[in-house]
Amino acid sequence: MRNLDETTITQAVIARHAKTTNRRLKTVMTSLVRHLHGFAREVDLTEAEWVAGIEFLTAVGHTCSPTRQEFILLSDTLGLSTLVAAQNHRKPVGCTEATVFGPFHVEGSPERPLGADVANGAEGEPCFVRGSIRGLAGEPVAGAVIEVWQADAKGLYDVQYEAFDEHRARATLRSAPDGGYHFLGIVATPYPIPHDGPVGQLLDALNRHPWRPAHLHFRISAPGYETLVTHVFRDGDPYLDSDAVFGVRSSLVADWVHHEGGPAPDGRMLDTPFSTLDFDFVLNPARKEG
Amino acid sequence: MRNLDETTITQAVIARHAKTTNRRLKTVMTSLVRHLHGFAREVDLTEAEWVAGIEFLTAVGHTCSPTRQEFILLSDTLGLSTLVAAQNHRKPVGCTEATVFGPFHVEGSPERPLGADVANGAEGEPCFVRGSIRGLAGEPVAGAVIEVWQADAKGLYDVQYEAFDEHRARATLRSAPDGGYHFLGIVATPYPIPHDGPVGQLLDALNRHPWRPAHLHFRISAPGYETLVTHVFRDGDPYLDSDAVFGVRSSLVADWVHHEGGPAPDGRMLDTPFSTLDFDFVLNPARKEG
Repeated sequence: MRNLDETTITQAVIARHAKTTNRRLKTVMTSLVRHLHGFAREVDLTEAEWVAGIEFLTAVGHTCSPTRQEFILLSDTLGLSTLVAAQNHRKPVGCTEATVFGPFHVEGSPERPLGADVANGAEGEPCFVRGSIRGLAGEPVAGAVIEVWQADAKGLYDVQYEAFDEHRARATLRSAPDGGYHFLGIVATPYPIPHDGPVGQLLDALNRHPWRPAHLHFRISAPGYETLVTHVFRDGDPYLDSDAVFGVRSSLVADWVHHEGGPAPDGRMLDTPFSTLDFDFVLNPARKEG
Repeated sequence: MRNLDETTITQAVIARHAKTTNRRLKTVMTSLVRHLHGFAREVDLTEAEWVAGIEFLTAVGHTCSPTRQEFILLSDTLGLSTLVAAQNHRKPVGCTEATVFGPFHVEGSPERPLGADVANGAEGEPCFVRGSIRGLAGEPVAGAVIEVWQADAKGLYDVQYEAFDEHRARATLRSAPDGGYHFLGIVATPYPIPHDGPVGQLLDALNRHPWRPAHLHFRISAPGYETLVTHVFRDGDPYLDSDAVFGVRSSLVADWVHHEGGPAPDGRMLDTPFSTLDFDFVLNPARKEG
């Protein structure tokens, strides 16, 4: 364990973990060390670059707060989140596809009845969202916990406002006995991921834009089914083919239908514009695991 | 750029960097993305593990402060620092070897005259340190900037004390016209790296101890020479073969000679114990680079 050089150091670090009792941790760390060193060796990382890397990671850490998760942004923009989502949700054909979780989910959003105005004051064109939750065999899933969250017309989530004191465009619903769900949200618009921090600087340096195509987040969970984390995207969005976080799936792109006014799905006759979005979800049976 | 799966995502992220004008950044990010994804794929990283990783990195970031650099500790304990030091300092035989920088260096430590008591109140057995700074051809290097820093008898650097208001066991010296240097420091003792944070938790989980063998840090710079960042270790230390940060090199292990009292190198007759350490440094000519 002395005189380690640029080739022997990797095996020495791995050997140091020989007594690790947590076997999975040992496996993960062995691979991590091998790839971390492999990267530094492959690019012949300089000391100045190493310092820049330490400073970058420190800045990412210091940007993290209870309402901002810069490391998730980093993972998202480097495609790691999409990779992890994909390899953890190899689903049978027919199931709704998963996509990235994103950094703006909030645990414990308020439960609202079906049909509620979950926008709750968030700026945007009203959008009546409705559909069903079913299993792979077509069976309705009653009482599924449906969490929805989305950005407003300014491209901001409620938690991004300094004066965040109320959940807006964010709620928890439960599917009806027939598996149906409906609520009043707002029309999603494209927005840039927060790019005033170190991840934004990295994107700038890489000549990458920070935009995400318009989308509405869903997390749907029900006993006996694999929890589904996904979005519904909006057809025609200019960023569908260059999503900053690589999350778009064709099967998740839907037609958000614009109406200049008229009879709304909630029975009212509206003289202001609104949209409607119909989207049905198909859940995968839960995997058998510990 | 839609429907990226666990195999196509990697190339898609790399392709997104096609327009990066900084060619070196492009090279580094291509390798980084490939290895990051390669790691996640190789261990089939689960979402729970991904969350744990995000939380770990966030905790590391939040532990960083002006006097604590947890990301350097992480790099050190994963052997990355030793790898980067090694591949950036491929030196001719005869030069003093480099080792890790560590997280406790402070820029701009006070300049002291040769012979000064740099301990400045730090607890520990006095140690008279002396030697020379030379070039590879044996030429003396006059006026080299010699930064020294070390932990005290409690295993703590000055900056680790809550009430850090004065530099202790830390100073900047300049070599004499004949290349000689000498100062009064303290005997180094082994100490654990800070292990009350996330890196300490990781070491615990890996069944690794946090100890470093006793050492004295040097950074030596002079025009025309490659800056040398290194330690002098203490022979006989129990942790020489299991340094928590993989930094030990045989050529840097020296005999710290203990004296029960008697004539000291500064001409005084001491009736209390002290040590002496002789160590000569040989600098590498500066590399020609931009």
